[in-house]
Formats: sequence, C-alpha cells, structure tokens
Amino acid sequence: MTHSEQINRQWVLSAYPQGAVRAEDFQLAEAPVGEPGPGEILVRTTWLSVDPYLKGKMAAPAMALGEVVPGGGVGEVVASNHPAWKPGDLAEALNLGWQEYSVLKPGGAGAAAVNRILDSVPPQSSLGWLGMTGVTAYFAMLEVCLPKPGDTVVVSAAAGGVGQVAGQLAKLAGARVVGLAGSNRKSDLCRELGFDQMINYRDVDDLDAAIAAACPSGVHAFFDGTGGAVHDAVLRHLAVGARVAIVGRIAMAAGGEDVGQRASSLMIPARATIRGFMVFDWWHRREEAIARLSQLYADGKLKIVEDISEGFESVPDAFLRMMSGSNLGKQLVRI
Amino acid sequence: MTHSEQINRQWVLSAYPQGAVRAEDFQLAEAPVGEPGPGEILVRTTWLSVDPYLKGKMAAPAMALGEVVPGGGVGEVVASNHPAWKPGDLAEALNLGWQEYSVLKPGGAGAAAVNRILDSVPPQSSLGWLGMTGVTAYFAMLEVCLPKPGDTVVVSAAAGGVGQVAGQLAKLAGARVVGLAGSNRKSDLCRELGFDQMINYRDVDDLDAAIAAACPSGVHAFFDGTGGAVHDAVLRHLAVGARVAIVGRIAMAAGGEDVGQRASSLMIPARATIRGFMVFDWWHRREEAIARLSQLYADGKLKIVEDISEGFESVPDAFLRMMSGSNLGKQLVRI
Repeated sequence: MTHSEQINRQWVLSAYPQGAVRAEDFQLAEAPVGEPGPGEILVRTTWLSVDPYLKGKMAAPAMALGEVVPGGGVGEVVASNHPAWKPGDLAEALNLGWQEYSVLKPGGAGAAAVNRILDSVPPQSSLGWLGMTGVTAYFAMLEVCLPKPGDTVVVSAAAGGVGQVAGQLAKLAGARVVGLAGSNRKSDLCRELGFDQMINYRDVDDLDAAIAAACPSGVHAFFDGTGGAVHDAVLRHLAVGARVAIVGRIAMAAGGEDVGQRASSLMIPARATIRGFMVFDWWHRREEAIARLSQLYADGKLKIVEDISEGFESVPDAFLRMMSGSNLGKQLVRI
Repeated sequence: MTHSEQINRQWVLSAYPQGAVRAEDFQLAEAPVGEPGPGEILVRTTWLSVDPYLKGKMAAPAMALGEVVPGGGVGEVVASNHPAWKPGDLAEALNLGWQEYSVLKPGGAGAAAVNRILDSVPPQSSLGWLGMTGVTAYFAMLEVCLPKPGDTVVVSAAAGGVGQVAGQLAKLAGARVVGLAGSNRKSDLCRELGFDQMINYRDVDDLDAAIAAACPSGVHAFFDGTGGAVHDAVLRHLAVGARVAIVGRIAMAAGGEDVGQRASSLMIPARATIRGFMVFDWWHRREEAIARLSQLYADGKLKIVEDISEGFESVPDAFLRMMSGSNLGKQLVRI
C-alpha cells in the first residue's frame, strides 16, 4: 500500500466563525495521504499546538471553507525524498495544520521552515515555550516591557502559555510580578511559578481597587494578552514612563464591538508607550530567544506547565477550551 | 505712589469647570501690585499665552477657588532688585499668570525659570513657536513620530499652534503631510504653510473614506492633538510600524466619558507604537529645539500664524475660543 492509498484525517473549516468560534465551525474530513515529491518529506503528526492567532485566519480571504485548519505541530518523518532527513527524524513546522499527515519541503524560511527538534527537551517544547509561544513572551517582555529591578510588571492571561513564560522572565530581570488570571486554580499555578501576587479578575468586587492594592507605586510595565475590560483597568494604573506590550486580545475572542475607555486618555499623564506586538517581526532573532530559554530551562530557572489534550479527535475542543480560557498552561494536543 | 498702592487686575478661578470651561468660571479681581523683594523683579505683563493644558489645572487640589489662573506670559521689567535685570528688560515666564503684574525671582529652573527674550524674533514668539508650543511640536514630531521621506504623516488640530509647527517639521523631514482641521479656513491656512493635503473632518460624510483616500499607503505617523472620534478614525488607517504621539486631547475638552474604539484592537495588525507626550519631560533639551526652530524661522523655512486677542479683559474669551477650536494659529493675548 502506497502512502496515497492511506487515509489522512483532517479538520477542515466548515463555516466562518460568527463571533465566538464554535465546534460546528469544524468538520472531520478524509483525504489520501500524499506522496513526498523530490526534496520533500512525509510527516506523521504527533503533537499539535492550538493558538489564539488561528482565529484571525478563520475568515475570507485568508481561508476557504473546506480548507484544512492551519497550525504548528511536531511530527515523525515516515518517508523522505530529502537527503538530510530520514524516517524516524522529528520535525517541527508552523504549517503542519490540523491533519494526521503532511508533506513538507525542508529548506523554506520563516513561517515555511521545517525545523529539527532539540534532543534535550520534550519534543512538544518547540510548539510552546521553545516555539512561537516562548519567542513571543521573550521579545514582548524583554524588548517592549523592559522589566528592571524595582518595577512592578503586570501580566494578564498569566497562566497561559505565553503569560507564564513572560512573568518568569520579568522575575528573572528583577521585577516584582503581578499576574491577572480568571480562576483560583490559575492563580495558584502562577504562584508556584514564582509570580509575587495574583488577582483573579473574575473574583474581585472592584478590579481597580485590587490593582491599586497590588501595585502601590503603579504599573511600570504591562504585558497584555487579554484586551477588553481587564486591559482598560490596568491602563488606569500606569506609572509614569510605563511600557505596555499588546500581545493578544483573548477577551475579544467572541468578537463584538471593541469599545472601552480610550487608552489615549491615560497616556499623557503616564507618558506611557503602548506597542502592538507580532512575533513574526522578531522571528529573525528567534535563535537568541531559544538559546536563552533553553539555558534557563536546563538551569531549572524556567518552569513550564502544559495542558495536554489527547487524540486527533480532540483538536477543535482543545482550541475552544483555550479560547475560552479553560486551559491551564500552554494548550497542546498529543496525536 | 509705591507699586503696592497700584492696582493689579487678575483673572481668578471662581468655579471649578464642570465639563466644558465657561466664562462664568472666571472672575475679574483686583489686588495690590506687589513690591519686588531682594533678588526679585516686578514685571508688567505684555503678552499672555492660553493653552489647553490649563484646563487640567483648573481642579482641586491643583488650584484653589479665588486663585489667579496660571499661564505663561511675556512682560516688561518695571522694577528690579536683581543685579542682572533692569527696567525695560523683557522677561518670559511660565508662571506669570492671568494678571497685569507679577513679582518674579530670576534664577529658578524648569517651570520656575525667568527667561530673556531673543532680540531677533517678535517678543511673543517665546510663548508660541519658541516656547512650550514649539518645543512640544519639535520633540513629539521628531522624537516620537520619526518622520522620514516616503512617510505619510497625519497631524490633527493641524491649524493650532502646535499642529502647524509639527506639520512643517514633518515636511522638512521629507514626509508627505496630511492635516486634519475643523474648518475650511483652517485647511486653507495649513495649505499655505505647506501641508500636502487637508481634511476638514466636520465637512466629510465619511471620515474613514477621506483618510483612506488621503493616505493610500496608510498612516506612517500620527501626531494627535485631538483625541476623540478623529483619533479613533486615524488609528484605523495605521500602516505597519506606525508611530503615534498623543500630544493633546482637545476634543475631550468638554469632559464626559472618554469611550471609543480601543486602540489595542488596531495595534497588533499595525505593530504600532503609541506614546503619551508631556513637554516637561523634554524641557531639559529645550535649547536644542529653540536653536533649530529659530534657524528655520530665520531661513524662511518655518512660517508662523498667530491668533491675537487684544486686551486683558479678553483673556478668558481667548482661552474659550482656543478650547472650542475657533482660533486660527497659536492663540495669544496682547495686554
């Protein structure tokens, strides 16, 4: 039996999400497993990452209905027409997609790259803290938020894959770190990772009072993965000279009008700098982040919590869990 | 008759503004003209500047009711107990206030400084394009907006004292400059000053369409003196890597809830940097701005339009005119 006679299960987009993404927006489909052409490899997916940015792609013209949902993953080479790759090798790629098999062409750059997996860390690491997730946390925290000793740094979505790494990097830079999360379980997790103080924003009567109490000299830097009302509240407590990285806006995942307090009203008194962050602008410096994060991990200075969902069938559910904030740590799927 | 037997007319704050400032919030009062103590000078006001930032001061605890309204001005020395100053000298100070006479102590620094007037320019220049107004335009444009050839730079409140200098500096840096103003008279004025294109935001059906048409490759930098709905609209057209300086928020002068489209919604796609600007953070570099602006003026490369109101009685009206956007150019009062 050739590969093209085998079945490749895929999750395809069956409807463009209207507001929040729903399970019905995806459909399980079957296609033949492709044959690798010259210079190509066939990879069997072993891990998939589900990330908030995917929602932005689930719209025309970025995606057609019936198309395989994109996304990064790790897989094992099962056939190779490329001299540098052999069956059994592990590969990581941003364009694996929600499917059991992919044909990849090593040698591409940027988002099209096919990367080898480091032996020293678990294979799924390159989808999380050693991949886009960690690279985002690294540059948005260290190059935009600029934490230093004496600073109070606030991290929203603190228990997520990005937030947990960002908060630990701010601690390592000598700052005091206050996390915002939506459950007591998440707050406990972050405290174990070394966050100095946590605010469960779903469980406080007065979020402004809670932020003021946790940040008595104001917020010197704000790493924001949330957007929405939590974002507005933190901006009201910026210290003079504050740096704000807008990394994600998961609170707006359900869509709707993104209306609230204008940031500009708070920026003149604080002389704040707010910067929108997209990891691909920093991708050329990815190796720097990976080298530093690997070293911190090897030294026991960086701890990672993953939320692992099991089985290819669970991919859309894992995505929806993550979008609704039910995950605890970086959301992954083991295939 | 000693100076202390003469009458010093003053405009004092009689009520804290609720929402927009009204004429009734000020009252004319009389006090004795003070006598200069050791090291002090007595100055008769000849020019006053009225600026948007004053509104922020007209509240407790910054100001008590009955207190003289603050503000920068130029005056002539009428008595001196300071060895370096003699009657007839011209002085400029940020703390002159809305009054006919002031006792000043030369030698202070920063906002308390008493400065001499350059001979080469009209005496009121140091209240406008050679003072806080010009220094604001200079640093907010050149250090925050970072204009360069090929850029499209949008300036709001373009015909105001700050906006007109900012726009000309962007032109001198090689950028294409699009101005936003609230009347056709203002638009005409800005075109005469060299703005490439003007949008009268009060006279367009669809402000977004007008901005898109004027900025076909997006807005590379935005110098915002306005806030409000105009601010929101420009943010929707930011180019990738855009720089935004929040310099003023005159559209919110009437108070009220400052709610609109959250800037964060637009910042990730544009990877924009938005920075709140306060001129006093740059005051230590004031000489640099003044030297460059004077040279440009002397070379005929910088044109200045002033809106001059006549007489001490007109000070509150001039302030209200400026706050409502009825002025054409930097608003000054000749006493």
